[in-house]
Amino acid sequence: MGLSRRRFISRLAAGGGYGAAYAGMQALGLLSTAPAQAAPALPAAFGGGRKVTVLGAGIAGLVAAHQLEKAGFAVTVLEARERVGGRTWTIRDGDRVEMRGENDQVARLSKGLYFNAGPARIPSHHQGVLDYCKALGVPLEVEVNTSRSALLQSDGALAGRPVQQRQVVNDVRGQISELLAKAADRGALNADLTTDDRERLLSFLKLYGDLQPDLAYRGSERSGYVTAPGAGEDAGTRRPPLDLRDLLRGESTPNILFEDNILMQATMFQPAGGMDRLPRALAGSLKGPVRLGAEVLSIRQTPGAAEVAWRERRTGAVRRLASDYLVVTLPLSTLAQVETDFDPAFKAAISGAVQDQAAKVAFDAPRFWEAEQIYGGLSFPSGGTGAVWYPSNDFNAPRGLLVAAYMVAKPAAAFQARPLNEQVALARAAVERLHPGQSDKLTAPIVVNWNKIPFNLGPWLHWNADGNNLAAYRQLLAPQGRIHLAGAHLSHLPSWQEGAVASAHRTVANIAEQARTFRLAGA
Amino acid sequence: MGLSRRRFISRLAAGGGYGAAYAGMQALGLLSTAPAQAAPALPAAFGGGRKVTVLGAGIAGLVAAHQLEKAGFAVTVLEARERVGGRTWTIRDGDRVEMRGENDQVARLSKGLYFNAGPARIPSHHQGVLDYCKALGVPLEVEVNTSRSALLQSDGALAGRPVQQRQVVNDVRGQISELLAKAADRGALNADLTTDDRERLLSFLKLYGDLQPDLAYRGSERSGYVTAPGAGEDAGTRRPPLDLRDLLRGESTPNILFEDNILMQATMFQPAGGMDRLPRALAGSLKGPVRLGAEVLSIRQTPGAAEVAWRERRTGAVRRLASDYLVVTLPLSTLAQVETDFDPAFKAAISGAVQDQAAKVAFDAPRFWEAEQIYGGLSFPSGGTGAVWYPSNDFNAPRGLLVAAYMVAKPAAAFQARPLNEQVALARAAVERLHPGQSDKLTAPIVVNWNKIPFNLGPWLHWNADGNNLAAYRQLLAPQGRIHLAGAHLSHLPSWQEGAVASAHRTVANIAEQARTFRLAGA
Repeated sequence: MGLSRRRFISRLAAGGGYGAAYAGMQALGLLSTAPAQAAPALPAAFGGGRKVTVLGAGIAGLVAAHQLEKAGFAVTVLEARERVGGRTWTIRDGDRVEMRGENDQVARLSKGLYFNAGPARIPSHHQGVLDYCKALGVPLEVEVNTSRSALLQSDGALAGRPVQQRQVVNDVRGQISELLAKAADRGALNADLTTDDRERLLSFLKLYGDLQPDLAYRGSERSGYVTAPGAGEDAGTRRPPLDLRDLLRGESTPNILFEDNILMQATMFQPAGGMDRLPRALAGSLKGPVRLGAEVLSIRQTPGAAEVAWRERRTGAVRRLASDYLVVTLPLSTLAQVETDFDPAFKAAISGAVQDQAAKVAFDAPRFWEAEQIYGGLSFPSGGTGAVWYPSNDFNAPRGLLVAAYMVAKPAAAFQARPLNEQVALARAAVERLHPGQSDKLTAPIVVNWNKIPFNLGPWLHWNADGNNLAAYRQLLAPQGRIHLAGAHLSHLPSWQEGAVASAHRTVANIAEQARTFRLAGA
Repeated sequence: MGLSRRRFISRLAAGGGYGAAYAGMQALGLLSTAPAQAAPALPAAFGGGRKVTVLGAGIAGLVAAHQLEKAGFAVTVLEARERVGGRTWTIRDGDRVEMRGENDQVARLSKGLYFNAGPARIPSHHQGVLDYCKALGVPLEVEVNTSRSALLQSDGALAGRPVQQRQVVNDVRGQISELLAKAADRGALNADLTTDDRERLLSFLKLYGDLQPDLAYRGSERSGYVTAPGAGEDAGTRRPPLDLRDLLRGESTPNILFEDNILMQATMFQPAGGMDRLPRALAGSLKGPVRLGAEVLSIRQTPGAAEVAWRERRTGAVRRLASDYLVVTLPLSTLAQVETDFDPAFKAAISGAVQDQAAKVAFDAPRFWEAEQIYGGLSFPSGGTGAVWYPSNDFNAPRGLLVAAYMVAKPAAAFQARPLNEQVALARAAVERLHPGQSDKLTAPIVVNWNKIPFNLGPWLHWNADGNNLAAYRQLLAPQGRIHLAGAHLSHLPSWQEGAVASAHRTVANIAEQARTFRLAGA
């Protein structure tokens, strides 16, 4: 290793922080390709009973608490809500949805139905989250993130008619292959490819696009049938292809790329029974207390300790807790409301952070989409309310939880500005665009406007958008004395549980480095 | 309806059969787009207790029995094996695999593991199979038929190194998009597209291929990371793209189209606990007897009845059973061995049918693939042993059932000609190509050579291949008096359970028509 531990620690002590040292090591090519989010390996006696208070019982707080306990720290978790999980929030029958400026909603859901209002899928490469699910016995089932039977509907194409994704995916590929094959065939790629490579490309394009021997695309079985093949003389009838020029006019057509977003690629998972199974299992693994209904009021630091004042929401009593280290996982929008003695620049980075926007609307419904052979996956209608997301569990059950609208960014900002009944009507209309005649079967709407949810006031933030900046991000990565911020907002995956896990692991490593430094200094 | 019932029946009576009439109606555009495989709606008293014997308790036989009982027929099912299901065969610990010319194998599988030796997936558009699963309460779980983390390995490219499918899928699309975009940009498509359409195409291709503003493809996050994005400064490192010219040399590259085979498209299902849940549920729904160990010896017909002679395999006793109608679902390879009084041309169609070839090899193994973030899906190695298929159930369990080789047609013929220990070695080698160093963890091999399995002697047959012909198919679609053939081999889905369902439904409809005809004739 090119950097000595001493130099590493001195950098940390100088305020460059773990992140800076880590980035330096990265630049020098010193790190292996092990996942960045791996938890540090610390001996069980490492913490020696030193106290850590963790603010927030979301994924970051619970993972930090879990790892710090494993390393011999004495951990207390404070959580303002009456439940753990933070944004990892599964709404079931009878649960209350409180939003600023809106009347409370009480969820009314059929037996067995639940609504993952926050994260609802885990990619197969989110090793941190998957490792906790495995270690804690959280059962995983497949989240069907793409179904070729799900729909695309564009107001600007095909007279607004919804079509199956298998048609768009395969008719686009067929016609793009035809265009390229014909161009290659008439010599238009001769400057790009050798004769051999061009021949290989032509052979491949015939297969890729399901082209005819004359290189024309005339439709493909891949795009489905008008009548299905069956017994006897019933060979089935293929669909005629949709015209590429029409599809290029369709504003929903780009959603065929959704499945290859690296964060959306099969295989995707959901915990059986609800995403909150994970934070519940994490909380259940802790020995130290998880105090619910504990609202943080102030954070102060002395040379020897970090002190938190918090209000017991049920009684109104104010309590104080001093500890050797403090892990703060509160969303920055909430942390900005807490009285602190942080550096002014650090405070400014917190208060200046701008949240993204996100909203979801869900209904309880009979599974009419399964009668259309849609089992899980997402459909994409026009109209600005984002995706319609079908349940991936309990196929063939009488009823299911349908996410009828899910949008982020500007469309979510406009949506959340509307009265809730209009939001519900828009979500219903989105389903009607895809499934004409079915939307009146949708019952028991639940609207979640993340920018109105107390203790979140937003879904996540992007440091390179919305007026945020990476300088503020870097500021917040460094500890303030004994106080360490953690959370998905301090990762490159701000809208994923994996970011929270990675940040928690990084923070535990930072605390461990700090503990070693203090020990060397005799503190 | 343009065809009168009388004319419809007279066609049937003239030997054209239901199929011919049906095809005629189709040509006339008389049929709706309802699935061809729907069961006929018959009153519960329709059969009036008339007797039907069904030969074979595979999907076709069980579905026919189920529907005929619903319509008031008295049904007996004869099955040569000691289990129902036919090719729908789930092998569990302790089960015996008998194959002609080979020593018996006894499956040794860890608790909870099973091997679907025959069908193992249900497409979301196989409405017939899905309807029975729903009606009979067979629980469905997702069969992960495509995983972007699964592998492709080609001896002819990338020095034989396995790569994730996400790389091949997205690097191919990126470079094909680049070639087409650059061709469009330099005017090579001006004859194909208007200026407006060309501009739309260019905008779309940038998104489709994740191209840079200069229309070059320089790799994409879609193809995955060298190091994953994490917390702090760890933004992740993208993989460099694989070169299209290399990929075009890879013999496994075409398998990126597998997911868009209409029969392989997401969403796909498997019954939780094994595919044989379906035939077991069908058999459990029957009131009449299902006689196991009943080997059919001969089939004869009198003006008033169809008679079957069968051997009780446990005792050797020969028994006879006369009934009003006979449904014969035996594979043609087995039916050819039965003594019959069928027309010579009908007999010739049976005995002349040539089966396709298919073989599978499975192992019990620790889930080393899940440590590589592969959860379900199929990998495709070179070497001629077909796909490696990972389990879609019980993720994170210690062990899983790995299908290490699955091939059909010529490769399967060559494979099945080898001694079983060589077959096992080849299957192991296929896993080693994909997962170097792991194949010695594979234990308890089970080899199924479908062309050696008694009472099947083949997996299925294709009427337009292997020397078969559609004239023989049409011959067998028409009843022989009171005797009706059914099975996936009498459908356009010969290798799918859906074909068996569709054929069974068609046969029930044919028997119903015949019963009406007999009734009109006073028989």
